Amino acid sequence: MRSIIWEKGKLKLIDQTRLPLHVEYIECCDFHAVAEAIKNMKVRGAPAIGAAAAYGMVLGALAFEGNEKGAFRAHMNRVAEVLKQTRPTAVNLFWAVNRMLRKIEELSGREVPEIKQRLLEEAHAIYQEDLEMNRRIGQLGNQVVPPKAGILTHCNAGALATAGYGTALGVVRAAHEAGKEIHVWADETRPLLQGARLTVWELMQDNIPVTLITDSMAGYVMRQKKIDLVIVGADRIAANGDVANKIGTYGLAVLAKEHGIPFYVAAPFSTVDLALDSGNEIPIEERDCEEVRCIYGQRVVPEEVEVYNPAFDVTPHHLITAIITDRGIARPPYRETLAQLAQYDQDDNSGRKEK
Amino acid sequence: MRSIIWEKGKLKLIDQTRLPLHVEYIECCDFHAVAEAIKNMKVRGAPAIGAAAAYGMVLGALAFEGNEKGAFRAHMNRVAEVLKQTRPTAVNLFWAVNRMLRKIEELSGREVPEIKQRLLEEAHAIYQEDLEMNRRIGQLGNQVVPPKAGILTHCNAGALATAGYGTALGVVRAAHEAGKEIHVWADETRPLLQGARLTVWELMQDNIPVTLITDSMAGYVMRQKKIDLVIVGADRIAANGDVANKIGTYGLAVLAKEHGIPFYVAAPFSTVDLALDSGNEIPIEERDCEEVRCIYGQRVVPEEVEVYNPAFDVTPHHLITAIITDRGIARPPYRETLAQLAQYDQDDNSGRKEK
Repeated sequence: MRSIIWEKGKLKLIDQTRLPLHVEYIECCDFHAVAEAIKNMKVRGAPAIGAAAAYGMVLGALAFEGNEKGAFRAHMNRVAEVLKQTRPTAVNLFWAVNRMLRKIEELSGREVPEIKQRLLEEAHAIYQEDLEMNRRIGQLGNQVVPPKAGILTHCNAGALATAGYGTALGVVRAAHEAGKEIHVWADETRPLLQGARLTVWELMQDNIPVTLITDSMAGYVMRQKKIDLVIVGADRIAANGDVANKIGTYGLAVLAKEHGIPFYVAAPFSTVDLALDSGNEIPIEERDCEEVRCIYGQRVVPEEVEVYNPAFDVTPHHLITAIITDRGIARPPYRETLAQLAQYDQDDNSGRKEK
Repeated sequence: MRSIIWEKGKLKLIDQTRLPLHVEYIECCDFHAVAEAIKNMKVRGAPAIGAAAAYGMVLGALAFEGNEKGAFRAHMNRVAEVLKQTRPTAVNLFWAVNRMLRKIEELSGREVPEIKQRLLEEAHAIYQEDLEMNRRIGQLGNQVVPPKAGILTHCNAGALATAGYGTALGVVRAAHEAGKEIHVWADETRPLLQGARLTVWELMQDNIPVTLITDSMAGYVMRQKKIDLVIVGADRIAANGDVANKIGTYGLAVLAKEHGIPFYVAAPFSTVDLALDSGNEIPIEERDCEEVRCIYGQRVVPEEVEVYNPAFDVTPHHLITAIITDRGIARPPYRETLAQLAQYDQDDNSGRKEK
């Protein structure tokens, strides 16, 4: 099962709002459709959004008629703006779109048809690199998983949230593949139930034991000593190690501290945004309140009920045991260790230099 | 709006599983119907369950034919057993049913028809006393509410959960009536959404400002300094002050501690079970896993998904700032202060002596 497929000049996305009861793909024929799919969370998960947006840039490029390079660049800047307007918190979106724009700059000497072709190759590269990064994250992260472990996770940082394999669930998969006796406890993750719908589905497909709980049960399950470690993904990581991730992550981190349970974040290094000094600077998306008033299409309370619906929260670095990236495992003090991992850019051809 | 109404020899209960989109009463004509309504949470909330069970005992008594006192007592013991089998955690259920059984013992010299009548009076007394206790809890609890306060609550400890006015929401109401500028933040309270459906509805009817959040947002909202105190109800309180309440309460208490926010429990003293040394001894009900797999009738994940569904958790006493009861506010050390409040029984005619 792949969540993102480029096929015959179109982008196919598994509709993550319909899983697991309906396994359906939507077809995006232009970049507007990709932007809509990101906004409506038909594709979600920071790395998956990045890859989808890269293909969105390709669809934008393919729609350009003519060979005038100036007009093409102007057009592509507009495409980039539309894609960047979709969701504000995950940095991978901006990272991927900017990488595509840089590729256009690099190819400024080439003709438009060649640039289009090279953009498709770049999108494929982003996709492929993400898959490899996730395997690397899994490999590294497996080191922190005991031979027998109850693992609590929140939202979905799995194959669906990435090009494949997953970040937090990549670590789970790697531990499972290594023969460790693991049991996953999946928070359902209100309002959109990514844990219940996506994480549980993914793990069951791989025969990894998983138990679904509501978000409110995490503390009780920890108190019952069922959890040996918590691992989550990330949407943006500031220079000081503060982590923005799905709403509810912060509460889990506090509970983990209270119970002396290690709390890990797993993410590709492209999620680290060294331009932000701390998590206070991370913009937090607030989404439509109907997501809370209605559950999975079922109205629970009337429209006049006042709702607050932040999609993310920020977990301060002091609650985080380690940040597992494809470049290595960062431990406190994060300002130093993340900066060190950033240095690897020097030998890196993936274009992540200008972060 | 009253959740429990005795009318023409029948018990009418507002169907709390259908609120707020459907305001409907169910009619219980016999004690089995009351037991079912408790089990299916059509009536819920520890004090409301107690009052409903008392009326269930009346319906059981009314169904008895004949005048043979031994047979009547045996019958009533069976009725009591059926009612006690419904839900294991809230002590008020056992307290109310036992109080009705004691009344039968007290009246052992009287004839069956008179006992039946006196049982109805006793049920009315339980109901009426609960209402008064809630007002007293509100009055006392108001003392801990600042003139301007963001108040976080979980589940529904309101008029619906009691004979009226509410325990935790009784404190909110009293503060509102006292002209304090309060704003309530209501956790939706998965799986059965009592916060979203019941607490929000109740408060909106009283024009008390309320914002609905998902359970996972509580930490973020606290971190944004929107919350000045947390107040919840209780299903059972052990002698050492440990409190069993709706699943998720424990997590809130940990978060409150992390943020230096006072954490209050409001409950009638009948919720205190001095026979239990600590919260470890409180039986925790596990409910049907379909409550998690389906939300408000809408299937979210397939039936084969493994689910854990404890309905309550235990908050250890060291996380609780104070326990607000109708007899006074208990503060740590609870083993002493709760025992002191229990002494008030000596001058108390409400029949709560034999706890």
